[in-house]
Parts: sequence; C-alpha cells; structure tokens
Amino acid sequence: ASRQYAHNTRVVPKITVKGIRAEGTPATINPSIRKNEEKVVDNVPIAELSKPITPYCRCWRSQTFPLCDGSHVKHNKATGDNVGPLLLKK
Amino acid sequence: ASRQYAHNTRVVPKITVKGIRAEGTPATINPSIRKNEEKVVDNVPIAELSKPITPYCRCWRSQTFPLCDGSHVKHNKATGDNVGPLLLKK
Ligand code: FES
Ligand code: FES
Repeated sequence: ASRQYAHNTRVVPKITVKGIRAEGTPATINPSIRKNEEKVVDNVPIAELSKPITPYCRCWRSQTFPLCDGSHVKHNKATGDNVGPLLLKK
Repeated sequence: ASRQYAHNTRVVPKITVKGIRAEGTPATINPSIRKNEEKVVDNVPIAELSKPITPYCRCWRSQTFPLCDGSHVKHNKATGDNVGPLLLKK
C-alpha cells in the first residue's frame, strides 16, 4: 500500500517580528530610530532652514536624527560602508 | 629548558575590503550606490527645488538616488525595517 504523507504534513507558521532577522533575511538598516513608527518619514519645510548648510542623516545612526551628527564616520569605519549625509544648501 | 614561543608567533594580517563582511562585522547599509566614492554626500541647493514636495532617499535602495523612488517599501517588507524618505517641502 502506498504511504500517505498529506495528513502528516505540519505547517510551520512564519512569524515576522520587526527587527528580528530570520535566517537568510536581509538586514535592517535602521537599528533603533523610532521603532514604534511604521515608517520613519521626516518633513523639512525648507523656508525654515536657518544655516547656509544643514546636513541630514542617511545612516540611521545619528543621535540627533533626522539631522546628521557625524555618526556615519563610525559606521563607515566599522563596516567598510560609504554612506554620508544629504546637505541642504540655502 | 623553557620553550620559547615568541619566534613561532604568526601575525595574521587583518584584511579589510569594502563591502565584504568579516564574521561579526556589522552590515553595510548601502549595498550598491556609488561604491567608487569614499563617502556618498549629496548637495541640494534648496532654491532649485521645483515641486511642492521632493522626497529624498534614506534607504540606499532607490534607482533614482539621491531621490526616493519608493524602494523603501520593498526593503521594509523584506526585512521588517521601518525606514522612509526625507520630504523637502517648499
Ligand atoms: S550621522 Fe547619519 S549621515 Fe551623518
Ligand atoms: S527609495 Fe529610499 S527612502 Fe524611498
């Protein structure tokens, strides 16, 4: 008699938890900023910019996010990456 | 007689290659944009912004970098991340 497998099949539920990597899952790029928000979007009303140059963070490591505080330097050194800020110029 | 180890010590050179992760090295966040540049910095002369809202990429996945093309949505879905653009508003 042929053996039947169908009723023995166990469905392993796929659990997705924000910030926890399953094996083979590509990495997040934001480890800690505003993780309570679904998507971190920031608005800059450009008329309110006061300095000649204002650097905005794109490395997700700044302690003054959304502004750049220079933390990209440490990230680049630690990982070999080459990220840097967006400079808004008046 | 005491054994001497000093002359047997081999120094394993630490090799750093941009974009290649050593084990335990934190991941890069920019996989492919302008990897020939030491640091990717972009200037936005805000007087030249023409639209009411211009979204700039912070996920390093946009095909129109430094502008956002919506690629953050796919990245967030694939990784459980919560990154999004910087919106420059006139
Ligand atoms: S601190 Fe993030 S780009 Fe400078
Ligand atoms: S495509 Fe990168 S933030 Fe939108």
